[in-house]
Amino acid sequence: MKATVMYGAGDVRVENVPDARIVESTDALLRVTRACVCGSDLWPYNQMEHTDLGRRMGHEFIGVVEEIGADVRTVKPGDVVVAPFAWSDGTCVFCQEGLQTSCLHGGFWGGTDLDGGQGEAVRVPLADGTLVVLPVGEDDALMPSLLTLSDVMGTGHHAARAARVAPGKTVAVVGDGAVGLCGVIAAKRLGAGQIILLGRHPDRIALGRDFGATDIVSERGGAAIERVRELTYGLGAHSVLECVGHTLSMETALGIVRAGGAVGRVGVPQHEQIPTTTQTFYDNVTISGGPAPARAYIEELLPDVLEGRIEPGRVLDRTGSLDDVPEGYRLMNERESIKFLIEV
Amino acid sequence: MKATVMYGAGDVRVENVPDARIVESTDALLRVTRACVCGSDLWPYNQMEHTDLGRRMGHEFIGVVEEIGADVRTVKPGDVVVAPFAWSDGTCVFCQEGLQTSCLHGGFWGGTDLDGGQGEAVRVPLADGTLVVLPVGEDDALMPSLLTLSDVMGTGHHAARAARVAPGKTVAVVGDGAVGLCGVIAAKRLGAGQIILLGRHPDRIALGRDFGATDIVSERGGAAIERVRELTYGLGAHSVLECVGHTLSMETALGIVRAGGAVGRVGVPQHEQIPTTTQTFYDNVTISGGPAPARAYIEELLPDVLEGRIEPGRVLDRTGSLDDVPEGYRLMNERESIKFLIEV
Repeated sequence: MKATVMYGAGDVRVENVPDARIVESTDALLRVTRACVCGSDLWPYNQMEHTDLGRRMGHEFIGVVEEIGADVRTVKPGDVVVAPFAWSDGTCVFCQEGLQTSCLHGGFWGGTDLDGGQGEAVRVPLADGTLVVLPVGEDDALMPSLLTLSDVMGTGHHAARAARVAPGKTVAVVGDGAVGLCGVIAAKRLGAGQIILLGRHPDRIALGRDFGATDIVSERGGAAIERVRELTYGLGAHSVLECVGHTLSMETALGIVRAGGAVGRVGVPQHEQIPTTTQTFYDNVTISGGPAPARAYIEELLPDVLEGRIEPGRVLDRTGSLDDVPEGYRLMNERESIKFLIEV
Repeated sequence: MKATVMYGAGDVRVENVPDARIVESTDALLRVTRACVCGSDLWPYNQMEHTDLGRRMGHEFIGVVEEIGADVRTVKPGDVVVAPFAWSDGTCVFCQEGLQTSCLHGGFWGGTDLDGGQGEAVRVPLADGTLVVLPVGEDDALMPSLLTLSDVMGTGHHAARAARVAPGKTVAVVGDGAVGLCGVIAAKRLGAGQIILLGRHPDRIALGRDFGATDIVSERGGAAIERVRELTYGLGAHSVLECVGHTLSMETALGIVRAGGAVGRVGVPQHEQIPTTTQTFYDNVTISGGPAPARAYIEELLPDVLEGRIEPGRVLDRTGSLDDVPEGYRLMNERESIKFLIEV
């Protein structure tokens, strides 16, 4: 079968790999129908050291179940299913608490041992805990939005939850990538009053406004902090969604949060220590977040997608085939695309 | 009148200062009846550079109202009142949210401009927002416990709230000082299942057990982390109360918190950046806390003190007069006393 393999920075290829197949009795075999490239795929695309072995890529995908192991109970051949970006057993103590990214028996797609989503097929471990059946056909027009439930929409929602977004609150979203834009959707959906989007790309800002952003701040660093303070009567935002992961973006987030407010961080941190100041302590600021338990949020968000109340699929602004994946990485890396959809 | 003045590290004196008096129409004048020395007073006691001006000390006190300004409505001469460690107007947006330490018009006792609690009298600004009337006589036997509502009991409770202590949860308390011990009380009061106290002083540990600690960990650093993991099936504690403020204690707190758990920090941080690792992010750990809005918690905690369900006053293990205050600092600094009560 064909799948995406990364060998080093800038070196991403679509090539033949061994066919995916059932190994464990709890596995399902999926024919992938839709996948996409993630902003987090760009970290290795820019920094990965060369390896001869290669690394299988992709952790956001929808597919049709082709075969199931003997112990699989909740999906059957022919089901259209979405997979979250982490697989999980659904039964351990963390899964029961809704923190499937910390599943005692789970893990993440791709790498050197497992299939990635940017390919023709995937072996899904712990299928009962991992997969969610979608009540639509495999070519439904809602596919782009349904696909975002695998990661970016759940991640934006997680940022909003971690930042304690609530009705009427002032929210600031740091970052206008796909996750930041989904953060705007999530903030609006949870009833935020003012939604300030920090970003600078005209096409993304336009989409952000469509999604519910009430104010745009395109300055950076200290100037951005000053501008957000102006927009919030000098107090800052109750909830800040940090959707980048750079030290500067975290410093900005901590600089614009209100006393007693919360920063929800979902951008994979490129720093070790959190760049707080003593003011963060004196202001009783909460810092929360991490990788989103996307699996926990699918049931909650799915009705809103199916009924058209939210349209996160609009972040997928370019589309191509599996053979176009290297071009998709290039487009996203050069900011010519927010997020690249793969029609497998 | 007599009051405590600090002139530099180790140089704390009780001396004559100008009498406290009403200045603003919203002031109340208090004759102090009980006060105490705080663990945070030991930071300047160890590190303060010499100043000729001196710094008035003390932020935990109970007293009798002697006189009120023309606009004071909620207290009257003769009332026995407790003051939290920050004064606040009770009406601003932060006070209404229960974050009186961020009051737009409030502030903290002592320093160079205001009276401190370790003296014969205090001018209380914004008396209506700040003071709480106590339904007891000025020499009631409950005075030590009532006095802890000004700071340490509220601070322990704040740590527990910030760490999201809830019924049945596993809690770890880092630090066996007065705040840590009140954190144990707060955790027990909020229904925690297992309460692990990290500390090493036999008298404090004994009190911690009385307050509800189920396990004691006396190791430090990596060994402490390993021991807490052993006590929690390898998972760590849902809620960690960081009641010290050192880099090592914060590293310990982050090392023993469970995935999806929370660290409530109330020890004044002696570090700028929070010493997280990327694991803190991958584990979705929440970091919260800051100076406790003690004022917000008095009404909630007062009935439990009055009815004897909690006895935080037991942390006040040594007592003296105002003239004994320098000795009180010495006793606490040399760990011969947990907390020193002043009978003014």
